[in-house]
Amino acid sequence: MNGPANNELTRDVAHIHHAELLTPTPQESLEFFTELFGMQIESRSGQSVFLRGWGETQPYGLKLTESALPGLGHMALRAWSPEGLDRRVEAIQAAGLGKGWLDGDHGHGPAYQFRDPDGHGIEIFYEAERYQPPEHLRPRLKNVPQRHVDRGASVKRIDHVNVLAADVAANRAFAVEQLGCRLYEQVILDNGEEAGAWMSLTIAAHELIYTADHAGESAPPARLHHFAWFVDTREELLRAADLFLDADVPIEAAPSKHAVAQGMFLYVYEPGGNRVEVTTGTHFIYDPAYAPVAWTQAERARGQAWGVKTIETFHTYGTPDVNGIVGPPIPPTSQIPGAPGGAIA
Amino acid sequence: MNGPANNELTRDVAHIHHAELLTPTPQESLEFFTELFGMQIESRSGQSVFLRGWGETQPYGLKLTESALPGLGHMALRAWSPEGLDRRVEAIQAAGLGKGWLDGDHGHGPAYQFRDPDGHGIEIFYEAERYQPPEHLRPRLKNVPQRHVDRGASVKRIDHVNVLAADVAANRAFAVEQLGCRLYEQVILDNGEEAGAWMSLTIAAHELIYTADHAGESAPPARLHHFAWFVDTREELLRAADLFLDADVPIEAAPSKHAVAQGMFLYVYEPGGNRVEVTTGTHFIYDPAYAPVAWTQAERARGQAWGVKTIETFHTYGTPDVNGIVGPPIPPTSQIPGAPGGAIA
Amino acid sequence: MNGPANNELTRDVAHIHHAELLTPTPQESLEFFTELFGMQIESRSGQSVFLRGWGETQPYGLKLTESALPGLGHMALRAWSPEGLDRRVEAIQAAGLGKGWLDGDHGHGPAYQFRDPDGHGIEIFYEAERYQPPEHLRPRLKNVPQRHVDRGASVKRIDHVNVLAADVAANRAFAVEQLGCRLYEQVILDNGEEAGAWMSLTIAAHELIYTADHAGESAPPARLHHFAWFVDTREELLRAADLFLDADVPIEAAPSKHAVAQGMFLYVYEPGGNRVEVTTGTHFIYDPAYAPVAWTQAERARGQAWGVKTIETFHTYGTPDVNGIVGPPIPPTSQIPGAPGGAIA
Amino acid sequence: MNGPANNELTRDVAHIHHAELLTPTPQESLEFFTELFGMQIESRSGQSVFLRGWGETQPYGLKLTESALPGLGHMALRAWSPEGLDRRVEAIQAAGLGKGWLDGDHGHGPAYQFRDPDGHGIEIFYEAERYQPPEHLRPRLKNVPQRHVDRGASVKRIDHVNVLAADVAANRAFAVEQLGCRLYEQVILDNGEEAGAWMSLTIAAHELIYTADHAGESAPPARLHHFAWFVDTREELLRAADLFLDADVPIEAAPSKHAVAQGMFLYVYEPGGNRVEVTTGTHFIYDPAYAPVAWTQAERARGQAWGVKTIETFHTYGTPDVNGIVGPPIPPTSQIPGAPGGAIA
Repeated sequence: MNGPANNELTRDVAHIHHAELLTPTPQESLEFFTELFGMQIESRSGQSVFLRGWGETQPYGLKLTESALPGLGHMALRAWSPEGLDRRVEAIQAAGLGKGWLDGDHGHGPAYQFRDPDGHGIEIFYEAERYQPPEHLRPRLKNVPQRHVDRGASVKRIDHVNVLAADVAANRAFAVEQLGCRLYEQVILDNGEEAGAWMSLTIAAHELIYTADHAGESAPPARLHHFAWFVDTREELLRAADLFLDADVPIEAAPSKHAVAQGMFLYVYEPGGNRVEVTTGTHFIYDPAYAPVAWTQAERARGQAWGVKTIETFHTYGTPDVNGIVGPPIPPTSQIPGAPGGAIA
Repeated sequence: MNGPANNELTRDVAHIHHAELLTPTPQESLEFFTELFGMQIESRSGQSVFLRGWGETQPYGLKLTESALPGLGHMALRAWSPEGLDRRVEAIQAAGLGKGWLDGDHGHGPAYQFRDPDGHGIEIFYEAERYQPPEHLRPRLKNVPQRHVDRGASVKRIDHVNVLAADVAANRAFAVEQLGCRLYEQVILDNGEEAGAWMSLTIAAHELIYTADHAGESAPPARLHHFAWFVDTREELLRAADLFLDADVPIEAAPSKHAVAQGMFLYVYEPGGNRVEVTTGTHFIYDPAYAPVAWTQAERARGQAWGVKTIETFHTYGTPDVNGIVGPPIPPTSQIPGAPGGAIA
Repeated sequence: MNGPANNELTRDVAHIHHAELLTPTPQESLEFFTELFGMQIESRSGQSVFLRGWGETQPYGLKLTESALPGLGHMALRAWSPEGLDRRVEAIQAAGLGKGWLDGDHGHGPAYQFRDPDGHGIEIFYEAERYQPPEHLRPRLKNVPQRHVDRGASVKRIDHVNVLAADVAANRAFAVEQLGCRLYEQVILDNGEEAGAWMSLTIAAHELIYTADHAGESAPPARLHHFAWFVDTREELLRAADLFLDADVPIEAAPSKHAVAQGMFLYVYEPGGNRVEVTTGTHFIYDPAYAPVAWTQAERARGQAWGVKTIETFHTYGTPDVNGIVGPPIPPTSQIPGAPGGAIA
Repeated sequence: MNGPANNELTRDVAHIHHAELLTPTPQESLEFFTELFGMQIESRSGQSVFLRGWGETQPYGLKLTESALPGLGHMALRAWSPEGLDRRVEAIQAAGLGKGWLDGDHGHGPAYQFRDPDGHGIEIFYEAERYQPPEHLRPRLKNVPQRHVDRGASVKRIDHVNVLAADVAANRAFAVEQLGCRLYEQVILDNGEEAGAWMSLTIAAHELIYTADHAGESAPPARLHHFAWFVDTREELLRAADLFLDADVPIEAAPSKHAVAQGMFLYVYEPGGNRVEVTTGTHFIYDPAYAPVAWTQAERARGQAWGVKTIETFHTYGTPDVNGIVGPPIPPTSQIPGAPGGAIA
């Protein structure tokens, strides 16, 4: 029978309702997310634009905000209930990471603002509006939030957020204990250090990921690794790669399958320099007492699921950049040394 | 902001751990599930065989049991925690539908046995084993429960159970209030009668479905409409249709997309006469205050998502059969009147 | 060893270079093909617009022309060589079906105009331009003719033409003997009458199809059944159905698989009333002595590959309409009688 | 209009009917092709086994023969007609590369044996049997040669052969002029040397490929780069990677898309040491005057379609191995240096 279960934990948090991405190139980034990721502009306010994927029941999943440097603005969590919200605020305050209440923002009510141990900004609220499509976006089936979209990757909804942290263990513990995240997979180095934690608030394989920031002292805190958006099929993801190639989008990692969490991935850089992913995959965890899968350093060194070596920049690049460089790095796929003209079928 | 939310409900139940299917043709049914659905025989006991899909973390998702008539043996729910189990048993007893405790069964601990208002047998337990693959089925990636399978449809895991009920409203209310199911979609006839309720214990679009049994008085109670197994991609489902065709499996409904819950479907009859489905689709409900989608009689009359008319037997056939007939009915696809030899490209 | 082979036939014709579709609603049809089929406007001339799919190496595959009635304008065949062109013209004239030479049209040189026994207009030429994309449509890989497109179904290229004929046998014989088409599949009714002939100029399963026109005496000659455009994957075709549904496109036949030629299909009506298909599938015939597959009336009555009954209008509707009605018929999928509100998962 | 066309060439050859693979580990290789590639044993003779994919209309596409070293046994071409066969034999003899007539082999009639300039063994014949499935493999649709298969990759048919040559230009010229292959794509190094030629006998993007053998003097002549088998969908190819991973098949190159010819690929080593590919893709060339696409050294250095670097062994390994090593090399995907345990989501 199962050993100590992680199912006595709180379940007061429902999901990541939206996330805010900072960009030093707001116009280019906006065009990228609308034309290449296929998102809709749902609303605008000040230096921010609220964007949505066609399958989101909330008004938006992305808040894109102009900023001197790229990176994470904040993550917004939706509580399961008003009571759950109060319980979480109390726990966060007890942990000494609380900041205070905000009146709310477009599409949601009062939100409590706090930080994780690494300093990433997070907000939590319960009251939220349900998306009501305008006539030109009205779907023909009432259980679909909006008409299907055919622009670019036509992403369906925000799927997960991967942030970097100097101390993965401390942040993982906070996410599990104070936020009620369930730990499904992690990477434990030979020296015992935690190098990555894949957590979720649902049966979906991952929703909040912490991975080690190797930049060390020199690095700014609270860095972002990537945001990921979901598409329903692997074929849509493969097609997105064709569209991105023709649009000169810097592809960091071509489509392949992750070993961890089994998701299909396609990583690119948006104009502001942030790494963004198109993902799909349906690895569910129904077991309420699921024992987390721990990957060793050697197992990770084998690369991704089918043996593809993990792109080096994947281990070194985050936003804001350690060297303060703004804008997307030169994609590794352009740095390939000339291969002999030989067997290249 | 949202109106009355259904998120104050209990969440003591994690998922449908397995379901028991009764068959008058045990050998033929076993061959069907192993060779055509691609399931593994995990264990045997008495007149039952325990079968699993390659992606199930529990030892098995199907208990196949010999019986004079086909139909549902029982559904087994896994509680979220020991405390949750106690709370559910108390609530069920208070509802007057409890039967009593069983010592447990292969792969799980003590289970409390009860019935829904229509009489379907249900069990609930917390203690359960995690599947440990034998060496020949050991996967190469440790977050996959078992090696991938290439037999037939290679189903991944049991996805949902659809039972028939004389009074859908009463059973829906029991599932929501006593079991903590979340109601995502339903069909309300013009006369106000509830004709169907799609419920789930997770963000997945459906896990437990009640639809109206039109057989009326003459019908035996607690009938089964179908069990469904999940595959990761629509291509796997389309390919399953090719394999089933070559294997003379009676296809009741060819691959298409459901309007309700947006799932892709393929319905066939297993040798015992039970309807079984291969399904896929990734329609998630993250909103903790999701207002159920209610379909009207007219909307349903439009057929499935892309306009395919719902097969007539889908509204009339369940197991056990009303007329006591045993074995699969003649598939409607063989009853098609001769079409003119004309434009049939 | 093989019996009499059909491989001694001429192979002077390379492929159907383009086809001309007549429409009484030129603006609506143009918007349909650009926005919903995802084609590009390559050129305009008089009452015609030349449209292309992203994967066509020729400038265009569709010539859309305004006309009082919908239907086929003409089919244009490209000869394999100048010598082959001369040989075909001679053979066609000998068969008494020639009309005469045209100076050529946009994108191709001198063309010889003729008719098949049923009266369908056909042209044949050799000299043709290769598509040169403008900068904004320049692909990043030089073996792709144009950038990938993300509008609507994003069709790749015209795939086949299906015309109706009062005497299938006579037209099939002409296509095989005078044009060098290879007969791969056909339907032979119990009375010995040929009801359909699927022919191709390449290894592709079909390029020119003749099916019986059941309208009889009352029907105008030289009617069109449908034009079909190719997409690379079945997922693209399934997604097209979602997009068409949201755009209120009349869907005549939802996505499924043909028994004949094994192609995946999706049939809709364009605003002018013509039936058009999105198709995919990779059934190749490499055997130079392939013996045609002959389907019986009973086999056809079984419906499509997975048992879906062939939509009735598929046997009765063509353009121009027998009753002179202009515009798309009411899609059969809207004529479905109300189904009981029962088991409709 | 087009410049000098390559469409005046002979079209006497229909396709590569089958190919013979040599293996020093006959039992292991046979198990690989039957269990992992999903092929059927159609016949046996002496030290050879004849294997087929489910979609082949000829009895077999692979002749697997025991040999001291791995590599190509021979390629077998099917002529378009008896007359075409005679013309090709005459042309080959005139080129001084003929060897003589063989009585024939299982499934086909008299064959003329010859070599290409690099020394690869080739045979050409016209008379050939059509596959007749035994009852247990009889398909339910008469235009499918055999029941669908669910073992391993379930390959449909042999798709292309890629051989290595010291002088690509000389062999390309022979294939075009004496065999009637159509040149669709090639690689021209900065020094003007031809490094690769992708040719086909049909509209399919490639059927016979010559790429430069970099091993130079030390290398044995007539080496093989790989044989490729077709599957209908990219999803089947991706799934094959999961199955191969669990079966410990050495994966040389994980699934991705080729720039040249646009095919999706998955390269592995069979137990005998030969490289074999699972491929899919539907890039057709209908233009009879298609001007070959010439890739530069710099363009090739950019890697595959989506930027994946071409695996190094792809440029250096062929069979038989230059160093006389027998058996599959250590897959490069196992040689990946330990990646930091960091951002590996």
